[in-house]
This record gives sequence, structure tokens and C-alpha cells, in this order.
Amino acid sequence: MRDMTSSSFDSRLDAYAELLVRVGVNLQPGQKLIVRADVEDAPLVRKVVDIAYSLGSPYVEVLWGDGLVSRSRFLKGPEGSFGIVPEYRAQGMIQLAQEGAASLAITSEDPDLLADVNPENVAEFQAAWRKAVRPYMELSMRDAIQWCVAGAASVGWATKAFPGVPEQEAVERLWDAIFTATRITTDDPVRRWREHNEQLRSMRERLNERRYAAVRFKGPGTDLSVGLADGHRWDGGESKTPAGTTFVANMPTEEVFTAPHRERVDGVVRASMPLSYNGTLIDDFTLTFEGGQVVKAVAGKGQKVLDSILDTDEGARRLGEVALVPASSPIAQAGILFLNTLFDENAASHVALGRGYEMTVEGAASMSEEEKRATGLNDSLTHVDFMIGSAEMDVDGVKQDGTTEPLMRQGAWVS
Amino acid sequence: MRDMTSSSFDSRLDAYAELLVRVGVNLQPGQKLIVRADVEDAPLVRKVVDIAYSLGSPYVEVLWGDGLVSRSRFLKGPEGSFGIVPEYRAQGMIQLAQEGAASLAITSEDPDLLADVNPENVAEFQAAWRKAVRPYMELSMRDAIQWCVAGAASVGWATKAFPGVPEQEAVERLWDAIFTATRITTDDPVRRWREHNEQLRSMRERLNERRYAAVRFKGPGTDLSVGLADGHRWDGGESKTPAGTTFVANMPTEEVFTAPHRERVDGVVRASMPLSYNGTLIDDFTLTFEGGQVVKAVAGKGQKVLDSILDTDEGARRLGEVALVPASSPIAQAGILFLNTLFDENAASHVALGRGYEMTVEGAASMSEEEKRATGLNDSLTHVDFMIGSAEMDVDGVKQDGTTEPLMRQGAWVS
Repeated sequence: MRDMTSSSFDSRLDAYAELLVRVGVNLQPGQKLIVRADVEDAPLVRKVVDIAYSLGSPYVEVLWGDGLVSRSRFLKGPEGSFGIVPEYRAQGMIQLAQEGAASLAITSEDPDLLADVNPENVAEFQAAWRKAVRPYMELSMRDAIQWCVAGAASVGWATKAFPGVPEQEAVERLWDAIFTATRITTDDPVRRWREHNEQLRSMRERLNERRYAAVRFKGPGTDLSVGLADGHRWDGGESKTPAGTTFVANMPTEEVFTAPHRERVDGVVRASMPLSYNGTLIDDFTLTFEGGQVVKAVAGKGQKVLDSILDTDEGARRLGEVALVPASSPIAQAGILFLNTLFDENAASHVALGRGYEMTVEGAASMSEEEKRATGLNDSLTHVDFMIGSAEMDVDGVKQDGTTEPLMRQGAWVS
Repeated sequence: MRDMTSSSFDSRLDAYAELLVRVGVNLQPGQKLIVRADVEDAPLVRKVVDIAYSLGSPYVEVLWGDGLVSRSRFLKGPEGSFGIVPEYRAQGMIQLAQEGAASLAITSEDPDLLADVNPENVAEFQAAWRKAVRPYMELSMRDAIQWCVAGAASVGWATKAFPGVPEQEAVERLWDAIFTATRITTDDPVRRWREHNEQLRSMRERLNERRYAAVRFKGPGTDLSVGLADGHRWDGGESKTPAGTTFVANMPTEEVFTAPHRERVDGVVRASMPLSYNGTLIDDFTLTFEGGQVVKAVAGKGQKVLDSILDTDEGARRLGEVALVPASSPIAQAGILFLNTLFDENAASHVALGRGYEMTVEGAASMSEEEKRATGLNDSLTHVDFMIGSAEMDVDGVKQDGTTEPLMRQGAWVS
């Protein structure tokens, strides 16, 4: 068994921190940085901060959180109190983003952390927090700032992803899986990411040329047609700010994705993996869509949480994203159910309920809210991905004239 | 060697968290709580938060920091950038305090953390931060809110307090020392604190009756007369908010203290212990006072940091506090140099440069700034205690007519 304090682990963590700062948020000289992380992520965060200052950042704001402190609140806080949110923290994020700071979020949460918590408490908090932080979210969701979400192994997460494995070993295995998924184990991670971004770029350009009206998913329990927004653009891999600075918003990322039309989704879709949402697992669930809207949602586990997502607002019952990921992706091949969307969504094709991304509709950045809505781009306070793809999934592109062509067969790209 | 995960350690940590919430800040039903702590203090913080919510607190704001992140900034951040402070964090503290929140600060910092840092960088940050957080400081320094400062063992602190002792053992020994100093090792810590507060109360009442003009310290390297502010009040042990809620501002606390007159301090004083200030040790130092002001300051180690304290503002060269602690105090008896003022100042009589406490002058709470100044109460942006007492120190009370009576001989109270 390897030692977490070994020089090999430490040098991989160094390489990972370097990748997140240089490729993930691609921090520019003189640029501030926001880091959001759990107190357990301190070893990674310290390296990130050190690299940022070495690159000449004038200020790094680390906004720490702690899963167990949150859990304590949601379990024991008094009824009606969960709408109290740290508005000044939101103000700090908004102010720094408006000043042009880049933003790195580290995710390491225990997927089961809030399993025994009343989901209404969490929903009450989430609604208030999303409202407080909305100006920040708008900047990041339209790529006005460089942002990146990446993972860090924690005891709570690792022991859920590797049930039955001793704590320390589970953490090591999860770090290994994270390092593999983010190409840290290769000889030259930065170069590998450049090549990988290039591949995703060529795939999205191919899809953009075809101008499909819809994509259609067929697999066990699923027969779903996802109409695409007018003027939709496939995106994936590297993103770009208006000033032209590139960044990688998710690490890992293996997807190409675009905007569904908010009124043109029909059929039934069965999730191919459990979904960990705000510390609760939703599993074995099927959604039925009519005219873009979820008209039925049944979960074997986590029904209340699923309902609370759908009840966020009108847009939460519609799709904001459709993404294609081959079953050959390194994350799928690892054969691990990470129980963390950042990773699991890069193991399988997926869709997301809620808000769509502006950059996935041509010209949306300069449209009014009504114009954006008219293209079919969805709006909501939430955005929740869930996985639908697998090695048994076929995907067709549906052309404007109704004819189809195969995109994926048995989860693999048709070239 | 005991195991930190043992049930005995855990139950002591429980008792400690309980003491801090129930006696330290004395959290009231329905009251919010601010907790400031280092990420390494998470095990204690989680217990504090849990107890606060169990007592019905509607909201606990944990403001985390990380010593190594700060160190990274001060070492590598660009020149001229250290005046950037998280103003929103200050705003959050101010807002919560104005709403009547109680405030608990956990100290666990490595006394040597910033030893190799340019003290000007730290001073630049401190000046900007103190300015941002001043409305909060004013509320806490005049006891308008319940507040408490308490310690937690960290690796960085423990290995400095117990040099040469293996890491894990050093942390255990420091926790033991903290638990002993805070009476957690007794059968009934809450009752013991009640008795202890009672003793401090009777001591301060005795001193208040005597209405000394000055106290005079004589010991190795020290011959200092500290004139007392007009209308001075000796304080110590339990404090009280204007609404009458009691709290214990420092845990441990063994001192009775009052306000020096800002213009009536004369002589030479030699520190009896090294002082850890913002992560740098100042050692072997002597200050000379004339008319209340430091006219000479010589340190064997940490001269630059000492100078930066004195240069904060005009008030930083004058005294804001004089405190008497017998050499028999449990902290002195432990024979440990904690290298943390919270503990070390309760092992020895001490004075503080900088701002004085309003509650140590009768009626100051309703005085104008000019009126306060006229009593001799000192004002400054800073407040830095340093230790002058020892088992070789004699202290006299100087009466209004110039006659003296012995207060302490060889560090022990004269009863």
C-alpha cells in the first residue's frame, strides 16, 4: 500500500494543482483568483494558492466550507431558518468576478452527506443562496470569467465510491482515479490536455456543420427525442472568455454538449446511473417528457429530492443541456461509479434539467431574455445533470427533414 | 501513548466545546454565532456548531482561515498587494455582530508561521484589515456582544511549544495542557468556572476599593510605574453585555486588569517571555517609557516586528492595559511556554500596547472620544499584550498620596 505522504503522491498533487491553475482556470498574470473548497481539501488548495501567487496573482480568496458543519445545520437548525445565507460571501464572489477574477471550485463532497436530512431544509437554503449568488452565476455561465470545477478525494466521498474498502486505501484509490481521469498519470499532462481539447473541438465542429433538428436516444428504458434550440452551437473542451482567454470549465471533461429546445423534448428517459444531488442519492429514476416538460418523474430512491429539483421553478422541469460522451471515455473505462456528477457525467451521455448555457446558442450573449427564450434556450435558477448513456445506448441525429443518421451505436461514436 | 481518536479525547473535546458555547460565549436561545477558526480546527469547530444548533441557534457562520494560505500570500504575493483584504468578510462579521450574534474565535496558530516573511507585508495587511473590521472590533471591545477567544492544538503550534517531541505526541501534550488550563480535566468544568469567576470577581472588587494612582513593577530588568486612568475599573473573569448577559472573553483567564493612564507610564520594563505576534517571535526585549510613551525599544530577536507594532499609530506606543496574574496560576504552574498570548498572558502579569478597554474606565461607554482620552484611556488600531511578570516580580500599589502597599511579592498575591 502506498503512502499518501510519499513523494510520488505529493508530486502528482503538485502536477494536478499546476494543471488546474495553468490549464483549468488558465490564470493570467495580475489576475485575482477565487477558490472554493472544503476544509478537507486543504493540501490541494495550499498548492493551488502557492502556484497562483508564484504566477503573480495579487490576491487569492479561499472560500472554505465544511460538509459536516452544513450537515449539522440542516439536521438541527430550527424550522424556517434555512433561508439565512451568507450574503456577504456571495457579495465577495460577485465583486471579485466583476473585477475579473478567475474562479476554481474543488468538489469533494460525501455523496451521502445529507441522506438523513429533510430535503426541504436544503431546498430552502439553495433557493436563497442561488438568489444571492445569481450575478456571479450569470457571469460564469456565460463564460465572462475563466472558471473550473475539479475534484479532490475526501474520506466521505472515497468510502462511498469504494464501499467496504478501508478508509485510507479508499482515499488513495479515489486520488488515483482522479489523477487518471485528469491525465496526471501521463508523461506530460499539459500537452495531453491540449491534444484532448483539439479532439473535442473537431468533434463539436463536425456536429455544428450538420445542423440537426434533434438527437434521439434509444436504450434500455429510454426512447427520448431531444429537439435542439434554434441556432444551437455544440460546445466542449476548451472555453473562451469574451477577451479570448481560454479555460477548461470542467476537469475532467469528455463531453460535447449543446442547448435543447425548451419545448421540443418528448419521450421517456431512464437514468443510467444514480445521481448524487446536494448530498442525497437519487437512484433508479425515469422521467417522461411532453412538449419539453417533465410530466412524470418516478424514482426508486430519493423521490422527494427529485421532486424538489423539479419544483425549483418552471424551467427546472425542462432541459438546458444535452451532452454526448462515448462509453469509451477514460472515466467510463475506469468502471468506477464516482457518485459525483463532475466525473460521472464524463462517463456517459447526459442531459440536464434547468438553465441552459448561453454559449450554446449562436448570438445569445447579445439577445434579450425574450429573444433567448424564443430560440428555445431554457432558463431556471437550477442546473442538474443526470446520466442517461451507457454501452447499450444508440443515438441518432435527426435532420431538419426528419431523416436520421446514426451518431452512436452501443455507446460508441459512429465515425 | 494515547490515541487522539480515543473516546477519552473525544469526550474531553465534547466537554470543551460545551464549555466554550455555554460559558465562553454563553449562547442564548435564538442567538446567532460567529466562529472564526483555522481549517485544522475542524474537529472542535464541528462540535461547537452542533451544540449551537442544538441550543436553538438559527445560524452559525464559520469563517475559516488557513495559516499556510496566509503564509503563501505574504511570502509570494506581489509588492503593494497586501492592502487587499476580504472586506465582505469584515462586512459579514459586522452585520452579524450588529444583529446581536455572539462570537467565538479559536486560536491555534503556529507561533513561527511567518518567521521568514517580510513583516511589512503583514503590517500592510493588518492595517487594512483592522480598518475594515473596526466597527466589529468596537462592538466586541466594549462588550456589546458576547465574545470568547479559546485555543485548539495544531501540529504547527504543538511542535513549537514542545520542540523535539514527535508531532503526534506534541499535539496530545498541547491538548492536555489546554484541557488542564481550561479546567476540562476536573469533575465539573462548568461549576469550576463559576467558582473561579467568583474568585476573580472578589479580587477585582478589592482592587477597585483601593483606588490606586499607579501600580509599580520591580523585577529583573524592570522598574516600571504604570499610572492608572482616572476612574479606572479593575476587570477580570466574567464580563457582561449591556443587556446583562455574562460571558468569559478569554478561556483560560486568570488575570485582573485595568486601564493605564496613557500619559503616566514611566520607567523600564523587560519582557519575561517571548511574544509570538502574527507568526513571528519577538524575544529578549526591553521597552523604556517616558510620559506614557515608548521612547526606546530593543529586541534581541524580532526587532523589525516590534518596531512595526510601535509604528501602527500614535496610540501603539502607549499602554492600553495592565494586568496582574500570580505566578501560582495553573498556566504558570504547568511550566509550559505556550508561545500563544492567550495562554502565556495568564501565566504572568502583563501590559498591552495600544487600545484600552472601555469597560475598564467608569462611564466610558457613554463618553465622547475627547472625554475618554481625558481620563487617560488609550486609543489605537492595535492591542498587543506582552508578559512582564514572573516569580521574581514584586508589585506595589501606589496610593493617591504617594504611599505604597505591597500587592505581590515574588509573583504571589500579598493577602
